[in-house]
Amino acid sequence: MTNVTLRGEDRMLSVAWTDGTSTNFPYIWLRDNCPSGFHPQTQERQFDLTGIAMDISIAKAEQDADEIILTWSGDGHVSRYRVDWLFDHRPGVGLADPAEIEPALWRSDLVPESLPRAAAADLMVNDDLLLAFLIEAKKTGLALVDGMADDVEAGVDVARRIGFLRETNFGTTFEVISKPNPNNLAYTSHALPLHTDLANQELPPGFQFLHCLANEAEGGGSTFCDGFAIADDLARLDPEAFRLLAETPVPFRFHDEDYDIRRHHTVIELDLFARVQELHFNAHLAGIFDLPADRMEAYYGAYRTLMQMTRSRNYVITTRLKGGEMVIFDNRRVLHGRAAFDPGTGFRHLRGCYVDRGEFDSRIRVLSRKRN
Amino acid sequence: MTNVTLRGEDRMLSVAWTDGTSTNFPYIWLRDNCPSGFHPQTQERQFDLTGIAMDISIAKAEQDADEIILTWSGDGHVSRYRVDWLFDHRPGVGLADPAEIEPALWRSDLVPESLPRAAAADLMVNDDLLLAFLIEAKKTGLALVDGMADDVEAGVDVARRIGFLRETNFGTTFEVISKPNPNNLAYTSHALPLHTDLANQELPPGFQFLHCLANEAEGGGSTFCDGFAIADDLARLDPEAFRLLAETPVPFRFHDEDYDIRRHHTVIELDLFARVQELHFNAHLAGIFDLPADRMEAYYGAYRTLMQMTRSRNYVITTRLKGGEMVIFDNRRVLHGRAAFDPGTGFRHLRGCYVDRGEFDSRIRVLSRKRN
Repeated sequence: MTNVTLRGEDRMLSVAWTDGTSTNFPYIWLRDNCPSGFHPQTQERQFDLTGIAMDISIAKAEQDADEIILTWSGDGHVSRYRVDWLFDHRPGVGLADPAEIEPALWRSDLVPESLPRAAAADLMVNDDLLLAFLIEAKKTGLALVDGMADDVEAGVDVARRIGFLRETNFGTTFEVISKPNPNNLAYTSHALPLHTDLANQELPPGFQFLHCLANEAEGGGSTFCDGFAIADDLARLDPEAFRLLAETPVPFRFHDEDYDIRRHHTVIELDLFARVQELHFNAHLAGIFDLPADRMEAYYGAYRTLMQMTRSRNYVITTRLKGGEMVIFDNRRVLHGRAAFDPGTGFRHLRGCYVDRGEFDSRIRVLSRKRN
Repeated sequence: MTNVTLRGEDRMLSVAWTDGTSTNFPYIWLRDNCPSGFHPQTQERQFDLTGIAMDISIAKAEQDADEIILTWSGDGHVSRYRVDWLFDHRPGVGLADPAEIEPALWRSDLVPESLPRAAAADLMVNDDLLLAFLIEAKKTGLALVDGMADDVEAGVDVARRIGFLRETNFGTTFEVISKPNPNNLAYTSHALPLHTDLANQELPPGFQFLHCLANEAEGGGSTFCDGFAIADDLARLDPEAFRLLAETPVPFRFHDEDYDIRRHHTVIELDLFARVQELHFNAHLAGIFDLPADRMEAYYGAYRTLMQMTRSRNYVITTRLKGGEMVIFDNRRVLHGRAAFDPGTGFRHLRGCYVDRGEFDSRIRVLSRKRN
């Protein structure tokens, strides 16, 4: 049995839970979140906050089994809240999120054999297995799928099990092969240093899916590093470099015949809660730095330090994708690259697509719900 | 004739322009941006910054007609820069951007008749007219297209002239009609207070296209207000409310059978240069505020002030879309709403889609280029 107290002096309802803790609920919050104010079908909020006064007060608070019942002064409106709903939405804590998964940082001691891995056929039919795989893939930021059909659509089929595809100026899917007139170095046989894709977009794509259809050329090994681990180490080892990279906007740009897509970003981006949200790191798409001349050398120093970390054997792991494998990684966290390959020695063909973090997280939440 | 001076003491090349101004170019910036370091076809950066020292120095600087020629100490590498390229990329100024358009703020004295307007047929064939229209649409954040074919694809055709469509959980297109089992209040005949769409997404869609195929029901007028104007006024009239709305993350959420998409945002979001970038304002999708209880009442006060401004006759304009018209607006700036309508009195059908700001701006840049 919970215990409910009205604190008129600071307009809070204090609820003492059975575990001995207690929570204060501001009156205005309670009125705004009265269950009667939500549309019964869409669950969207319909209550009009402008129709009430900020100093609204409660005439009576009662508890009836699992409900707390408030009677409001003035209009006499009655609000009924489920106790567990109140507990789940405590101010200062907020709703639990099954997709809020602490990243497990990794460095070069991560052996590719220990990456999260699943068989394509299982992911396509088994919701429990898919959920477990998505959680592990999000935790590590990098995972492998094997047993992929030798079909150009097989990677897209797995991606679409998670969410719809993110379209970009390169299409909804893209073929990583050596092309005659490339508009992107990925479409050559050059080595690609570690990078995040499409850093020139306002929101670079989230999870990338690269289905290896063939990898018979000499060279062409895949490289990865955990940008969150690098950022974490940089913050400790060189806090001033971290600060410069987290606070200084620099331009990124891609342009070809049909597009000219530009965006300033910080190389290390923090979210609203000051956690590292993503890295924008793509030497190819880095625009011409435009900060004031007197701040340029210090910035270049910080940027070069980060670049050296992405080349360091402390962070980089190498694996060689085989035909029938697909790699999935969080493009905004995990940098990817490849060794040069010799297109004369065999065919190399990866087919790629993206599913954004929003849809990926949504799938984790919905699958978590269905398990209950 | 420009005048070039080496300033070895702070590792800058000083260039005095013919107009009497001068610019300092840091050596490390010049070396990083040597034209030889870019791929000739893709124009992507290939130069390896980690291969040079931070204190690199210049042995010789010369000018030859429109080029500045630097010889680097140490490896003797020679870099040739076009003078106009250096001018265009001055540190502290950066590359001019045709899509960088100052918003023209508007309030309720904007008469709908004076909105940017064009005929669909013209936009489809005339690049110059399309460019002029996109610039005006971006400046005002709101524009009209008339003479639309009575064809559900007509709106999409215009949108695709600008860029590919942004897919969301509601699809790549959506039908705004009254539906029997709505998962969104837009799909009812209720009034919709002014809001931005999909504030629960990490990146809410940019430009929205609403093609009016039929508007024969009683009611159903469209309302708009300029969120940038409201934010601008709020910053002057109530700076503390502005600060709370620009700094406090609050949750947004949409959930139905298939999706559960959540994101914390500030209601007023500033970009990296402290300019208002967008508003996230959607009472329907506002989650349960989760900030600490002792900060709740002040936040609600600020939020309610903003909400009242969106209801104020100082800001809101009303227009009634006719069949054959399409409205285009920047969903991250301009709030939209509608009056309730009576579905018994006639059919109302809008068909919508989105093109993100990135593609919209890209089209402005590419069309600007083609005009030269």
